[in-house]
Amino acid sequence: MPDPRPDHNACRAAIADIKESLGAQVETGDEICRQHAHTLTWIDGQPPDAVVFARSTEDVAGVVAIAGRYRVPIIPFGAGTSLEGHVNAPYGGISLDLSRMDRILRVDTGDLDCTVEAGVPRGKLNVYLRDTGLFFPVDPGTEEATIGGMAATRASGTTAVRYGTMRDNVIAVKAVMADGSVIDSASRARKSSAGYDLTRLLVGSEGTLGIITEVTLRLHGVPEKVIAAIAAFPTLEAACNTTMAAMALGLGLARIELLDPLVLRAVNVHAGLSLEEVPTLFIEFHGSAAAVGEQSKTFEELALSEGAIRVSSAADETERRSLWKARHDALWAVREAWPGLRPLVTDVCVPVSRLAECVAATEADIAACGLIAPIVGHVGDGNFHAIVMHRLDDSAERGKIEAFSARLAQRAIAMDGTCTGEHGIGQGKMKYLQAELGAGVDVMARIKQALDPHAIMNPGKIIYLP
Amino acid sequence: MPDPRPDHNACRAAIADIKESLGAQVETGDEICRQHAHTLTWIDGQPPDAVVFARSTEDVAGVVAIAGRYRVPIIPFGAGTSLEGHVNAPYGGISLDLSRMDRILRVDTGDLDCTVEAGVPRGKLNVYLRDTGLFFPVDPGTEEATIGGMAATRASGTTAVRYGTMRDNVIAVKAVMADGSVIDSASRARKSSAGYDLTRLLVGSEGTLGIITEVTLRLHGVPEKVIAAIAAFPTLEAACNTTMAAMALGLGLARIELLDPLVLRAVNVHAGLSLEEVPTLFIEFHGSAAAVGEQSKTFEELALSEGAIRVSSAADETERRSLWKARHDALWAVREAWPGLRPLVTDVCVPVSRLAECVAATEADIAACGLIAPIVGHVGDGNFHAIVMHRLDDSAERGKIEAFSARLAQRAIAMDGTCTGEHGIGQGKMKYLQAELGAGVDVMARIKQALDPHAIMNPGKIIYLP
Repeated sequence: MPDPRPDHNACRAAIADIKESLGAQVETGDEICRQHAHTLTWIDGQPPDAVVFARSTEDVAGVVAIAGRYRVPIIPFGAGTSLEGHVNAPYGGISLDLSRMDRILRVDTGDLDCTVEAGVPRGKLNVYLRDTGLFFPVDPGTEEATIGGMAATRASGTTAVRYGTMRDNVIAVKAVMADGSVIDSASRARKSSAGYDLTRLLVGSEGTLGIITEVTLRLHGVPEKVIAAIAAFPTLEAACNTTMAAMALGLGLARIELLDPLVLRAVNVHAGLSLEEVPTLFIEFHGSAAAVGEQSKTFEELALSEGAIRVSSAADETERRSLWKARHDALWAVREAWPGLRPLVTDVCVPVSRLAECVAATEADIAACGLIAPIVGHVGDGNFHAIVMHRLDDSAERGKIEAFSARLAQRAIAMDGTCTGEHGIGQGKMKYLQAELGAGVDVMARIKQALDPHAIMNPGKIIYLP
Repeated sequence: MPDPRPDHNACRAAIADIKESLGAQVETGDEICRQHAHTLTWIDGQPPDAVVFARSTEDVAGVVAIAGRYRVPIIPFGAGTSLEGHVNAPYGGISLDLSRMDRILRVDTGDLDCTVEAGVPRGKLNVYLRDTGLFFPVDPGTEEATIGGMAATRASGTTAVRYGTMRDNVIAVKAVMADGSVIDSASRARKSSAGYDLTRLLVGSEGTLGIITEVTLRLHGVPEKVIAAIAAFPTLEAACNTTMAAMALGLGLARIELLDPLVLRAVNVHAGLSLEEVPTLFIEFHGSAAAVGEQSKTFEELALSEGAIRVSSAADETERRSLWKARHDALWAVREAWPGLRPLVTDVCVPVSRLAECVAATEADIAACGLIAPIVGHVGDGNFHAIVMHRLDDSAERGKIEAFSARLAQRAIAMDGTCTGEHGIGQGKMKYLQAELGAGVDVMARIKQALDPHAIMNPGKIIYLP
């Protein structure tokens, strides 16, 4: 692979040109550049040469036009919460920080939609919506994640089983393409057959085809009633089988999360809880009072028939919130439990019918190679994460973890699943993508080549450069 | 625009080559070629030079490879139920009929999905699923429409308001690309962030990027209870306002269809009913007995508060089926009501909050230019069809209808809607697509050029040839 890192003169000239129009919005200090580059994989942070803080779509278009002229890479940056090196600058270039584009442009309570700038954090959007009776459900775990970043990585999380992923909840985007042109991917109609689905092409394209600057989102009514429950199981298999059965029944769960005993232990310590340290499902039901009552009763019967040790409902709203906060903080709890180690979060997703088998084989693999790797999962979608705790500076351990990740990806692919349910391909999974989709990746490469012929848009992500 | 019609020698040579491998699967008779080309627009049928009946993905790949070598157009054909000239052969070439690829390959009741060959009619799939407790909900009105054709045109219909369109219900496709390569667009996982969304790119691409040969579909549980209701209104506006309010409430309607007085009259005659000939909503609720009871009660209150003359529920399953049969037969009923005239079915879709305004302006336009154009709509999605009854052989009338269609498309686009909610662009709407998406269409053209450089895949649809 040729090294397309632009020569330093070109990069310097581009930055100088951008400074001419955007002045103080351009930063080149080492510290700020380092802060704009990181991964949670075995790949090191790769800082850009400059960071540009965009304030408008016009700013973005201007920067892209200049970068195109000098063939300098552009790496879009939201909150930097992605895991797969999306914000890294392997070939140098300009990190385009969209966090200052954080205006909520319109909310329509009749059409249940809104339009926001890409840099709006999802937490801020939901605070803004609080008095409307609507909310934006996609929940990747952090309030800071920006809507633009979530769209670009096709994020999802705990509520996807009920409300879908960013694929389902983005109605349209405004994006700056590699040639500096600005497009609107679709109208605001709830459905359309108007040509190629540019919205879905850009959602999940990780900044490699265009830079999303505005997003029109579908909103949902706040459910009348929310009930949370916890089901404790003797084995991971029983928990997975319960999940499969609940999904096959079409129970309409809003959340169904698996935590293994290691995670439970960490969560108990972190949150001061005293949950049984066995495989556990955290479940949430959304709907009318009658509907959620019906659902939770059916779920309880199902779980018990699959061998659950105990099914208990949160007594009240406070307990419900504390449970889900514990679930959301699981990654931090796990970090605290093994101080000095770093987490690498895998992300496979398989058809739900293969979930028990895939989790069991992965547990066996973890045990066989002596890794510390607690498991959590959005299991209603067949998606689970092994959080591999490691010392990556130890090169033997690094090799072991890379090999484990590769086996896990292969296992999921062999079960007609995917190497990434929600984190994206980024830098580390390009080889798995090839294994997963084969000739399909050639089609992706031709699209990339057609829309970004000089490979300035987040190069080194998703698609290998020619 | 250059005429890329291949010279007759190339076409003849391609057909001869295909005959060598596929023999009796190739037909060149005038009658069969004519049957494979038609539209419901002002564009005449444009027959291909030959029809090839594929029996496998390998057949399709072989035909595409030969067509590519000779630069001969290929036009995929399912049941021929599309309206926008998708099956026309404006530059001649080969109609690739997939109707004999009609095997249901697998059904998984645990994962709620199935894989079928492209030529499977949707009616056949639902008959096959009858004993599984599952069904495939997307319902464009005819049982004959093939799943491949529905995917290629991103079809939807009466149930999209609850279950989504083909965009939402196709998990993955197998497709033959212009270079003869065969791709699988995605794994069977319920969600994935693995690179560009090739599934969604192919769904709705109308055969212009690749030929879909297999489709993996999401299935849904047959609802425990289905209730149908009819609400009669004094004005179209009141009916639209009720729809808006029901959508904003998130009532979870499974169907909400608008029929105007002209359609009601036609339906009464055709189906022997005696419904009031006023603007009417046909509604359906799916869910548990408790849920549908709750929903229908809320809907009734809502409709009455918006001025409904009467809201009545179907007394039993027989009445429910007869009502929905009447709705589905509306197009035939309208045809019968004006014998000697042909229907041209428009297809705009606007944000639901603009629906009343768009329908009212369209009614006024119809009256002002003296057209006969009954209106039906999948109004929960903001999608409605004016069925313009006409004598297209009268060139003055043809001009009037083209102008009306153009105004209607412009009206919808100006309301942040789309020129096609579910029928696709085909031949007649390419100019509206330009008006709707502007620079986005250039992006589409670059994708088309990259994936089909010789423009052999259904040329003359969606994208103007360069």
